[in-house]
Parts: sequence; structure tokens; C-alpha cells
Amino acid sequence: MTTQVIVLNGGSSSGKSGIVRCLQAVLPDPWLAAAIDSLVDAMPASLRSTDAGIEFAADGGVHVGAEFLRLEAAWKEGVAAMARAGAGVIVDDVFLGGPESQERWRKALGGLDVLWVGVRCETAVAEGRGVARGDRAPGMAASQAEVVHRGVVYDVEVDTTHAESLDCARIIAAHVKGPTSRTRPRPAVSDPA
Amino acid sequence: MTTQVIVLNGGSSSGKSGIVRCLQAVLPDPWLAAAIDSLVDAMPASLRSTDAGIEFAADGGVHVGAEFLRLEAAWKEGVAAMARAGAGVIVDDVFLGGPESQERWRKALGGLDVLWVGVRCETAVAEGRGVARGDRAPGMAASQAEVVHRGVVYDVEVDTTHAESLDCARIIAAHVKGPTSRTRPRPAVSDPA
Amino acid sequence: MTTQVIVLNGGSSSGKSGIVRCLQAVLPDPWLAAAIDSLVDAMPASLRSTDAGIEFAADGGVHVGAEFLRLEAAWKEGVAAMARAGAGVIVDDVFLGGPESQERWRKALGGLDVLWVGVRCETAVAEGRGVARGDRAPGMAASQAEVVHRGVVYDVEVDTTHAESLDCARIIAAHVKGPTSRTRPRPAVSDPA
Amino acid sequence: MTTQVIVLNGGSSSGKSGIVRCLQAVLPDPWLAAAIDSLVDAMPASLRSTDAGIEFAADGGVHVGAEFLRLEAAWKEGVAAMARAGAGVIVDDVFLGGPESQERWRKALGGLDVLWVGVRCETAVAEGRGVARGDRAPGMAASQAEVVHRGVVYDVEVDTTHAESLDCARIIAAHVKGPTSRTRPRPAVSDPA
Repeated sequence: MTTQVIVLNGGSSSGKSGIVRCLQAVLPDPWLAAAIDSLVDAMPASLRSTDAGIEFAADGGVHVGAEFLRLEAAWKEGVAAMARAGAGVIVDDVFLGGPESQERWRKALGGLDVLWVGVRCETAVAEGRGVARGDRAPGMAASQAEVVHRGVVYDVEVDTTHAESLDCARIIAAHVKGPTSRTRPRPAVSDPA
Repeated sequence: MTTQVIVLNGGSSSGKSGIVRCLQAVLPDPWLAAAIDSLVDAMPASLRSTDAGIEFAADGGVHVGAEFLRLEAAWKEGVAAMARAGAGVIVDDVFLGGPESQERWRKALGGLDVLWVGVRCETAVAEGRGVARGDRAPGMAASQAEVVHRGVVYDVEVDTTHAESLDCARIIAAHVKGPTSRTRPRPAVSDPA
Repeated sequence: MTTQVIVLNGGSSSGKSGIVRCLQAVLPDPWLAAAIDSLVDAMPASLRSTDAGIEFAADGGVHVGAEFLRLEAAWKEGVAAMARAGAGVIVDDVFLGGPESQERWRKALGGLDVLWVGVRCETAVAEGRGVARGDRAPGMAASQAEVVHRGVVYDVEVDTTHAESLDCARIIAAHVKGPTSRTRPRPAVSDPA
Repeated sequence: MTTQVIVLNGGSSSGKSGIVRCLQAVLPDPWLAAAIDSLVDAMPASLRSTDAGIEFAADGGVHVGAEFLRLEAAWKEGVAAMARAGAGVIVDDVFLGGPESQERWRKALGGLDVLWVGVRCETAVAEGRGVARGDRAPGMAASQAEVVHRGVVYDVEVDTTHAESLDCARIIAAHVKGPTSRTRPRPAVSDPA
């Protein structure tokens, strides 16, 4: 068995995109990144401010509507097809729907070997990192930090509160199966599994 | 028949991405954008400076290698799957390989209703727009302006030399078939077809 | 006399920043860009959503408050000091206050040789370019296109409705006095003055 | 005495810009950010790839030339003038020249009350954060981590290796003198001074 898709789930400012770039650097084969933020950017601008699309409230809340969900479902099929065509894909998502979000991915990725990764970060630290980024609404990190993990099942979890992105990436990479892991000269770092 | 994929082909700084955003604004349904530039961003940073990936030479030349082509092929399958799952997709690409690039898309998009669009711009004007953007190598627009169209077959062509992105988008939108066009109250603008 | 500061004034999406980059490319000496958008980015994030700072309304309106004006005034002094220290500076601003905005610049730039440039663009075209950019509120270009020029006095005016950024830059460059113009081998293009 | 300028010095990926945004959030008055990266962006694109400008080598080295230094000197005068005009300014710089870089700032900021801040980060951690950012050349963080601090004198130092940007910002804010500190309800956090 060879890992074909890595799905990272975590709240805003938990450090997912930094881990994705580090995974791309430490995994021996080239993997494609597929981020929910990039999907939002690929949608019509008008969807970013309507009920049917995605709305970012001033209190950090995020609400998605019917059109967003329809395009998101098609995007998941696209990610699955890229993996079936032979590209390793690293998904970077926020499971606002918790286990239902995971179930939708599970159906789209049917038949593929998936590594499910939880990216945790203490609420106060994630919120502070949102301030340091400067482009996230206050409250967004806090509102997502816990809820996105509730009821979700992982193969491996990392916590960025006290660990660097690169160290988290090495922990995750040690769980990636297949030709990839065979070509890595040695296990990169110890991991909690 | 309903148009499911719109493929825009044109050289650097010919105005494709502006047309994509205008198409997303004028088409009644929400369409997803899939740009070759976004694919490059989704690849590992290391691929952006190696023989196997994609290299941007100082003279504006662009060279792609085996790993790039492998990931690009998987991406095309992903775009096709998104369209088959019901999302309209607007592709924004540069056919460095001319008719071979088109043929690869044609195979990936098999069974889908595709609108092929050529986006032209006079070489000197495209080169000047590259200067105005400030992030493109001198010579890139010039080296691509003609060659990407050679031998490629289109359903509609637009020329941004003297036309605005929004006007070009309206010309293209008038060729989009299906429920979409039926809901548009009136033909937006005259077009050359 | 040698031109020390070039001040471009025009509405949103009139094409100022593209002209700035082209001016930097065609002027023989290196000039610094000083854009009002960069000033907004340099302010605390909290100022971008408060009465005292700057607010971008959904209808495209822009409202500035006391703290914004205080920092903007200091920024103008900074621009003047850079020019007095020997760096040519190209300012890219939106005179929301019309002649009062110009008068504030005039006071800050006292003693410096300034080239005042109006950047015009027909309202409908500017509004369409805002759509093509995708990150400007509908209505912003329209609400600014005329009002920012009312009562303002220029040394040279360009209109981007039918002219490229690079051509506009050459027209402006032909008005730049001093060692710079002496080293240019020939007048770049004809201009309306 | 009231602090008028805060100068942060640290190597690439040491976390300076995150601290700047956090300082802007925790200081009661609005402060302007003035980053060396923004100065580079404000220069002509041609200066970013010439001997006379600034060159970023593949090994992470950074070399600056005569034109860069001339514009940089004028920029420092501009920063000083903004502060003299009443805006608090937070500078984010990389002292490639060590104590000589500090001396040039000291002369430009003559008569102003300056808080000098060293931002340290262990070399391996900074290098890893450069990987997580994805847009920095490998080796850049490592080549700068130590050398930029050699011979430089600070009022306060922070180390981001194990501390969050927000916590570092609070340590620094506790050293900011004047009306600002009087309006802060309580000392934010303990600090090493």
C-alpha cells in the first residue's frame, strides 16, 4: 500500500499551510498542495460575500451556502482524480462540519489510500498567530480550534503549539507509506504513534 | 448541449486572468477558475528551480521537465473530474507545446463539452503590460505571444490589444451554451463569430 | 531645475500603479514608489475597519478618519524627506478631497520640484477593470473616477481609457526635467502638452 | 521621554514582521510599519537583479550595491521625518552590515527617542521556518541568523525560538515609553530586562 492523499484538518492559524510546504520539502517525491483557501480564491468574487457562497463574519465566524457546497463537492472529486492519476496530493482543509466533513472526503476519496492528520494548536496560541498574520478576523482561530476536531478520526495528530512546522512535517512523513518511505534514508524524527 | 469547460490559451500578459475574473462575473452560474499559475504555486518550491520541474529563464523562456509534466497531467484529470461532477471550470493555460498541448487537454477532457478560446495580444503591447505588472521577466510575453497559438484550433478568439477584459469576456460568454445562456436576458455584445 | 517628485492622482482602477512601474522602467535613474495603498498596508490592521481609520464600504465608498489623516500627514512629510535626501519619488494617490488633498501635498512638498500628473480613465472602463482585478468593490472606480480630479491642477494628464500604461509613462517621462531627461537619448513619444 | 521609533533587527525568518503586526495590535496608539522588504518592493524591478541594486543569490546570500544604498539612505531620512511629524514608526530591518548598519540608522534618527530591539532565533529553527514560508532561498536564514547581531547594541532582545510573536511584542511594548505606556492598564507580561 502506498499513501496517495494526505488530508490535514485544523482550525484557522493552526499552521497547516506551513506544514504542507514542509511536507513538500521533506517527502522525496513531488506532492501537490490542494488548499481550501485556494478553492475559495478560485470561486467567483461574488461568492465571497453572499449567502449562497462563503461569508467571513466580523466575529471570525464562517458561513457557507449551497453554491459553495456544490463547487466544494466538485473540487473534492477533482482532488480524488488527481490522486488516481498518480499525483500525491496534500489537502489542507478546515472541517467546519466535523465528522460530516470527513465523511464527505471519505466518499470522494473512495479506493484511495488516505492518511488523516489532525493539526492542533492551543486556542490562545492560534489566536495570537492570527494577530501576527494580520489578515484574519479576531475570533476566527478561537471559534475553530476545538470544533473542527470533534468526532474526527485521525491516523496521526500533531500539535503546533510547541512544535515547529518542519518537525510536525517529519512526524507526518514517517507515516507516509510506499515507495516514498522506502527511499528515505532513515526515519526523520521520533513520532508519537 | 451545455458548455462544461472553457479553455483559454494565450501568452504571458495577454490578459487571460482578467478575462477569467470577468467571465466569473458575467456568467450567471458560478464557475471555478483553474489556472496554470495556480498549479505551479501548488507544486513543491523545489520544482520551481530544477530541470525536472519548471524553470523561468532570465530571457523570459520557460522550460518544463518530467516531474512538472507528470503533475500537470494529473491536474488535467482533476479539472476534468471537477467538470464531470457538475462544476463549470474556466482553464487559463499557456500552450507552450502548441497543438500538442491542446491534444493533451482534449484527451483529458474527453466526453465533456469544451469551448476553446484563443486570447491574443500584439507582442509589443503584451510585453509592455509585462513591464506594468513588474513581476514578469522581460522577453517572456514576446517569446510566447505567437508561438502558443500556432496550430491550435479555437471556437472563438479575442484580442486584448484594443479590447477590455470585460468586453472580451462578454464575447466569450455569448458562446457558452446551455441553461446558462438561456438565463441571460439578452446577448451581451456583438462578437466576431 | 530637476524634477524631484512625481505625483500621480487618479481614481481606483485608473491604472496608476501600472504607470508607476513603467515609469520606474523608462526613467534612467532609479525612482522610489510611494503608494497610498502601501501606506494603508503599513497601518495597524485595526485601522482598516474603524471610524478613526479607513473604511471600505460595500458600495465602493471610502471613508477616512482622524487617525488615518494623522498618519497620512506624517507619511507625506516622510515622502518629502526622501526626495530632499536625493531619491526621486513617484507618489500614487487618490485625491478623495480633490483640491484640498493637493494643497496638503503642496505644503508637505514645499521647496521641491513636483510634476503633477492626472491619470484619467472613463468611468465604465475603470469599473470594468475593477471587475477584472477581482479585489475591488463594485462601484469604487465609478465613485472616484470624476470626483478626484475636480479642481485639481496638473502639469500633464494621461488617459488610460485607450492608452497603454507604458505609453502613458513615456508621455509623463517626457515632462521630467533635469539630468534624467538629458541622459535620455531621444524624446520617447509625442505627448499632448 | 516618549519612544518615537522602534527598530527591530534580525535575520531572515526570525519572525520580525509577525512581531511588528502584534506590536501594532497591542500598542494603544497606531504605529506605522516600515519594513526593508517594503523598501525593496518600492524600488524599480530592474534593481532587484543588478549589481547596483540588490541580488538574492541561490545560496541565500544577499548583496547590495550603490544604487540600493543611495535609496536606502533616503528611505531612512523619510522614516525619521515621519517620526518627527508625530507618527510612531516600527522599523523592520536586517543589519547585514552589523554595527555599521546601526550607526547609519542612528545618524538618520538623530534627536529621536529610539528603542533598539534584537530579534533572535536559533539558526536551525529560522531555517526551518524559511522552508515553511516557501519563498525564501535555503541558506538565507542560516547565513543571517548570527551575523546581523554581531556588535549591535540593544535596549531589549527577544528570542522567537520558543516564544510566540505576540508574547515577544508584549515584552517589547513594556519598554515603550511615554503617553502610550501610561494608558496601558497593566504591564502585559514579564520581560527579561
